[in-house]
Amino acid sequence: MKLASLNEGRDGRLIVVATDLETAVDATGIARTLQYALENWREVEPRLESLAKDLEAGKVDGFALDVSSLASPLPRSYQWLDAGAYIHHMELARQARGADMPPNAMTEPAMHQGASDDFRGPTADMEVIDADHGLDLEAEVCVVLDDVPMGVSEKEAVKHIKLVMLVNDLTLRNILPGELAKGVGFIQSKVANSFSPVAVTPMALGKHWRDGKLRLPIECYLNGVLMGNPDCGVDMTFDFPRLISHAARTRRLRAGTILGSGTVSNRDHSKGSCCLAEKRMIEKIETGEATTPFLSVGDTVRIEVKDPDGQSVFGSIHQCVVQV
Amino acid sequence: MKLASLNEGRDGRLIVVATDLETAVDATGIARTLQYALENWREVEPRLESLAKDLEAGKVDGFALDVSSLASPLPRSYQWLDAGAYIHHMELARQARGADMPPNAMTEPAMHQGASDDFRGPTADMEVIDADHGLDLEAEVCVVLDDVPMGVSEKEAVKHIKLVMLVNDLTLRNILPGELAKGVGFIQSKVANSFSPVAVTPMALGKHWRDGKLRLPIECYLNGVLMGNPDCGVDMTFDFPRLISHAARTRRLRAGTILGSGTVSNRDHSKGSCCLAEKRMIEKIETGEATTPFLSVGDTVRIEVKDPDGQSVFGSIHQCVVQV
Repeated sequence: MKLASLNEGRDGRLIVVATDLETAVDATGIARTLQYALENWREVEPRLESLAKDLEAGKVDGFALDVSSLASPLPRSYQWLDAGAYIHHMELARQARGADMPPNAMTEPAMHQGASDDFRGPTADMEVIDADHGLDLEAEVCVVLDDVPMGVSEKEAVKHIKLVMLVNDLTLRNILPGELAKGVGFIQSKVANSFSPVAVTPMALGKHWRDGKLRLPIECYLNGVLMGNPDCGVDMTFDFPRLISHAARTRRLRAGTILGSGTVSNRDHSKGSCCLAEKRMIEKIETGEATTPFLSVGDTVRIEVKDPDGQSVFGSIHQCVVQV
Repeated sequence: MKLASLNEGRDGRLIVVATDLETAVDATGIARTLQYALENWREVEPRLESLAKDLEAGKVDGFALDVSSLASPLPRSYQWLDAGAYIHHMELARQARGADMPPNAMTEPAMHQGASDDFRGPTADMEVIDADHGLDLEAEVCVVLDDVPMGVSEKEAVKHIKLVMLVNDLTLRNILPGELAKGVGFIQSKVANSFSPVAVTPMALGKHWRDGKLRLPIECYLNGVLMGNPDCGVDMTFDFPRLISHAARTRRLRAGTILGSGTVSNRDHSKGSCCLAEKRMIEKIETGEATTPFLSVGDTVRIEVKDPDGQSVFGSIHQCVVQV
């Protein structure tokens, strides 16, 4: 099952989307919003699945899906947690600035709590207020949870993953160092994120979802040129159940929590990079100098995951940088 | 005007509370929840104010307010930002461990984004899963905002403060160092916060709200004994408009955002402390050893602000530590 939200009001209007992303059907007779659906998943999910089946079978009249009419699946949420699950990305960052890895990097995931009050749609502009801020994309996989009890085990945690989607976690690289120096997280250096047009149930991902990881490559394009296509299932040091269990160690996580993987990154550098910072780190390590600039006004970014048949799974995040 | 939420559903049921906190009246004919009211403040606020006036005048039938029936005014929110506005608190922390202050501490507020998906009521238990975690209270003032535009000036920011309330920002002191070492904020070391029974408009605070600061002492009691009563208007290095402007530098803040001051702290040590960590820092600086333990099962904490006539302004946060 694939779910999306029409860009209406602060929480969107829930629709069920066909597997091929061509058509959709209003789902507000079952659940007004995706947030409501997540809060009442046990009752709501079978009815949404049934509607999805009817849409695929042509038993209900769908409408043609226009991606530009969509908000992010959750236009806002009560919690956005972002991890650093692909440790290779952190290793490159440290290597580029000549620093050692923290001793517990392989056993304790890094995770931060980010802004969740104001997500943007999958085709919304990336707004820049100052070219010197160094805007960067970060292509990530994320999961959407229902209510998770405190102290949840990894085995139980996987059951709370109700949906999977992609995110472009926008970062202002030149504001980041000042906030890292304060050491309590990111207020000014992370700006409004956009998520993929649709969120997909683990069951609908079939064999491409295994052991709490997405087993497909994520493609990042900058101005139409592929800059990376690492496999999301490769080199993910901490899988999603481990990340959920980490987040819930001392507290409950309430329905609608979104948990991100951090920038997807493979050790095989022929797979490219999913953010410009990593591309610059590799340049610095290999040639002594980072030459790729951060995003400029007019640049476009596209982030997508396709299955082996070439079918887009989550739809494309497709955004253009504009000055505001 | 004073507003509160009955503990019903995930978002509570909005009530208007009398100035003396003795009676209240259902406000759901105007706004179902406080979150809805904040999203529609311009239309809703005059009607709520009118209902509050009628309640004070005895023109509507109120019911006796039972604080144990209340959730926090916002039982969950889309954003919880917590600053370190009382720099003296940070100075003590650094002094106690022999470290220098960061060079920009007086010009750039420290601020982190915390969990906002699962607040507890003003009299909810403080849950401990492991006595070694070192549970601590932190008494703070906070403001609740409507929609704040990106790049808001301090002068404009003050207009977005719709409500003022208190918070007990619970911290697991012995998990904190490990998370500080990672340097990206707090996932496991900050647990579910409780807020004061009522949230109060700046106008209703009258002369006790000036220049974006609350001008009253905050009282902290541990097991019935006063441990601190610093003045919230004294030694606040960054006032709330400055903190809002900092948070909104590169992004909008959406309605329902709660922004906290950080632990209230005065340079005059006769005013005591609003968290045990600070009390321990002062002990360490003065005697070389911190002797006060963190909270134990059975301990009670009370946090309250009274006006010069002895009237409780926000009601009491009154919580007991329990093992879970």
